[in-house]
Amino acid sequence: MEWSTEKRYLPYEKWSAKTLLKLQSQASNSPYQLHYHIRPKSGLLNDPNGFSYFNNEWHVFYQSYPFGPVHGLKSWEHCVSKDLVHWKDLGTAIYPDTELDSHGAYSGSAKVIDNKLFLMYTGNARDAEWIRHPHQMGAFMDKNNHIEKLPNSLIEQPQHTTDHFRDPQILEHNGKYYCILGAQDKATKTGKIALFEAKDIKGPWHDLGYIDFTNEEMGYMIECPNLVFIDEKPVLIFCPQGLDKATVKYENIYPNMVLVGDKFDFKSAQFDSKNPIQNLDDGFDVYATQPFNAPDGKVYALSWVGLPDLTYPTDIENWSGCYSQVKELSLKNGQLIQKPVSTIKNLRQEEVNFTGELETKNQYELKLEVAASQKTTLHIAADEANTESLKLHIDTTNGELILDRQNSGFTVNEKYGTKRAIKLPKNTTLDLDIFVDHSLIEVFVNDGEHVLTARFFPKKGSNKLLIDENIKFKGQYWEMADI
Amino acid sequence: MEWSTEKRYLPYEKWSAKTLLKLQSQASNSPYQLHYHIRPKSGLLNDPNGFSYFNNEWHVFYQSYPFGPVHGLKSWEHCVSKDLVHWKDLGTAIYPDTELDSHGAYSGSAKVIDNKLFLMYTGNARDAEWIRHPHQMGAFMDKNNHIEKLPNSLIEQPQHTTDHFRDPQILEHNGKYYCILGAQDKATKTGKIALFEAKDIKGPWHDLGYIDFTNEEMGYMIECPNLVFIDEKPVLIFCPQGLDKATVKYENIYPNMVLVGDKFDFKSAQFDSKNPIQNLDDGFDVYATQPFNAPDGKVYALSWVGLPDLTYPTDIENWSGCYSQVKELSLKNGQLIQKPVSTIKNLRQEEVNFTGELETKNQYELKLEVAASQKTTLHIAADEANTESLKLHIDTTNGELILDRQNSGFTVNEKYGTKRAIKLPKNTTLDLDIFVDHSLIEVFVNDGEHVLTARFFPKKGSNKLLIDENIKFKGQYWEMADI
Repeated sequence: MEWSTEKRYLPYEKWSAKTLLKLQSQASNSPYQLHYHIRPKSGLLNDPNGFSYFNNEWHVFYQSYPFGPVHGLKSWEHCVSKDLVHWKDLGTAIYPDTELDSHGAYSGSAKVIDNKLFLMYTGNARDAEWIRHPHQMGAFMDKNNHIEKLPNSLIEQPQHTTDHFRDPQILEHNGKYYCILGAQDKATKTGKIALFEAKDIKGPWHDLGYIDFTNEEMGYMIECPNLVFIDEKPVLIFCPQGLDKATVKYENIYPNMVLVGDKFDFKSAQFDSKNPIQNLDDGFDVYATQPFNAPDGKVYALSWVGLPDLTYPTDIENWSGCYSQVKELSLKNGQLIQKPVSTIKNLRQEEVNFTGELETKNQYELKLEVAASQKTTLHIAADEANTESLKLHIDTTNGELILDRQNSGFTVNEKYGTKRAIKLPKNTTLDLDIFVDHSLIEVFVNDGEHVLTARFFPKKGSNKLLIDENIKFKGQYWEMADI
Repeated sequence: MEWSTEKRYLPYEKWSAKTLLKLQSQASNSPYQLHYHIRPKSGLLNDPNGFSYFNNEWHVFYQSYPFGPVHGLKSWEHCVSKDLVHWKDLGTAIYPDTELDSHGAYSGSAKVIDNKLFLMYTGNARDAEWIRHPHQMGAFMDKNNHIEKLPNSLIEQPQHTTDHFRDPQILEHNGKYYCILGAQDKATKTGKIALFEAKDIKGPWHDLGYIDFTNEEMGYMIECPNLVFIDEKPVLIFCPQGLDKATVKYENIYPNMVLVGDKFDFKSAQFDSKNPIQNLDDGFDVYATQPFNAPDGKVYALSWVGLPDLTYPTDIENWSGCYSQVKELSLKNGQLIQKPVSTIKNLRQEEVNFTGELETKNQYELKLEVAASQKTTLHIAADEANTESLKLHIDTTNGELILDRQNSGFTVNEKYGTKRAIKLPKNTTLDLDIFVDHSLIEVFVNDGEHVLTARFFPKKGSNKLLIDENIKFKGQYWEMADI
């Protein structure tokens, strides 16, 4: 299908209901459909937005283009959960239906203010010359999930940035509101994180300049910046597009980075850190991760498992993208730790002892403890003859773990490599907590010191789980329930 | 909103996707939405269709009009389940998109034939003079849930019926296929059940005449007839519209009846029974119940909880209808017994001892054992001051149980009465198994000897469960999980 600009920006009312019904049923019937992760009802899902707790429920909204696997005219789709695992899709929440968001209700965040959930997002508008005008917009959602947009833009594009100015994260500190935004500096065309301050959520908002967190150049644009506090330390999670690979090594088309700081001063926008900028995820497809400081004192994050400007095998089924499970963030010796949300255990069915070979439904959790000084390969979604599988090469002698999606079914963006490797302590036991959901794998390494997340697309009937060689390991396996 | 005939029959491609998205999110966000029963994604749901087991899953399709709470142009929407409790909506399966079903893909049934699921349904077509032409159509669904319609009508309207000729149930017996259909006799304008026979599912189909199961007149039309076998006894479940209340007492606008037989002869269409025709459900809203003989040897049934030609309070939210939980059918002394499906227990959360008063979420199961010679009222979804509630008046002295929805919130079709009463053995213990799901109640009496099913619409915040008087009872309460 040809996706002209005109077609991508066709108003929702110009599409037919029959087309939408067909897209919805096509997505629901896909063999690659996720069964215990958030997935689009139809079309494309990207950045998580407005991850929050309000009215006794967890909320997250997904960036949605319901009419195909492309980045067309975006809306917000609303999901709610009681336990951070069972999510219910309540449908479209914010439409691109005003002058200020006519070309997309783009990403943003949420905060409980005055018994309502305040949503702040980027209204994307283009004029007759197709020049982009980003408007930072506000909306209030009441306890009936009814949303009212504020009529005016809260923050307009500042003089010092280009029109790449978006993805507001709203924060509160010492009785004031702060907003951090992804930006491209006009003078240098480099990626920045902008900071604004206001006494009243409706403004006026004052420009505090860019957050000073590094002396390195952060590519040409930073998308989806988020600041959270873990053990009172500031942590930045952000996507510096075009980042020089000499600055931080990464292999995906665009990186999702994390920087653990020591101190953040809101007034001066000074972010102090003695730590390096690092990849948030060591797999293939994590982007636009949205963390938030939850009222239960924990820090949770959700990631889009999908990358901008790439295609995926489900495109031919007219849908694309999914979310990671919720991850709980913590710090250990200045390093970010990402663990599976504890309630994911609620999905476990009967425990099975994994002794080296299992027929699966490609919907499971596998906990694997590999002894020191072992070398093996774990085959996921292997076909009958084990000629194709997603491979996890494990070497606890030399301390190496490689996720290898070459020859794992349909190919996925091979241009950006087919392997992702991480270094581990040598001659040490390795703990893996692996979640497979049909076309998604999440590998939590050594209690969350690393995570490797990837989409993969096994051929029909490829559902074996096997481990090579006669090595020392312990395996616990659970089929996971649908949500 | 004015629902002209033209609007009701507007093709799905003429409705806009935006309208559909808004209807879907409006239905999802309704406070009356069902949380552990099948409900429409948008618009109106009515008869269950094609209830079956195929490809390691349970299937049921619902009659769907996605654009409003009215009986417009109908399609089949597909739901699947692994356990008869957790249902997943896979979207529209049969569209009214051929000449033969141009005015609705009406009700029907399913049967596994040659490794596919054969679906048989009524194609409703109207000509330029708006004269109805019912076509009994076939379609095969493969293991990827891909459906191909057969190009021709399998059974055309016979000479001896009017155009009210629909709702085929497909059966197999002694190597032949049988189809029973709801019909209106042309000569007498009375309700009949027609029987057809074929060697090949694609026909030719031979008319075996009407099933002879009663000497009484069965109103002006029988809808949704179904024949199942329980302990080898034939059981007819059917909806005789316009049935004289002197023939069988009933209070709903249209009844859903059951007749337990002794013997059914397919060749002669003779149904022998010594039992009376009885109401299948003693509540307010059950219709179009579809039972089926499952491959596990059990007989399951699902009911539409909603009635033709009536309105419901959710109409203003543009949606209407839901299904009962799956019920397991059995016989005891020639009486039909309907029990909650055993797997419904999987939804139970922590057990709570009900001692007379609880704050609820209107989403629970309550098992209540009331001692003999007691008289009380159970208040469901009561408001703070208990001035409004759905009432269950219990009298184990005189043996009476009354479901009273007067003053239970928003009124529902009061023209057809606000109370439903049943007689019970006097001075005997009463066992109730009560399921509440926001706007639905199902009361199973004495281990399934009676069921009283009803929609009800409590006002916001009415969520107390109370029992009057100091009587002798035992109560077990479980909040129920969402599906």
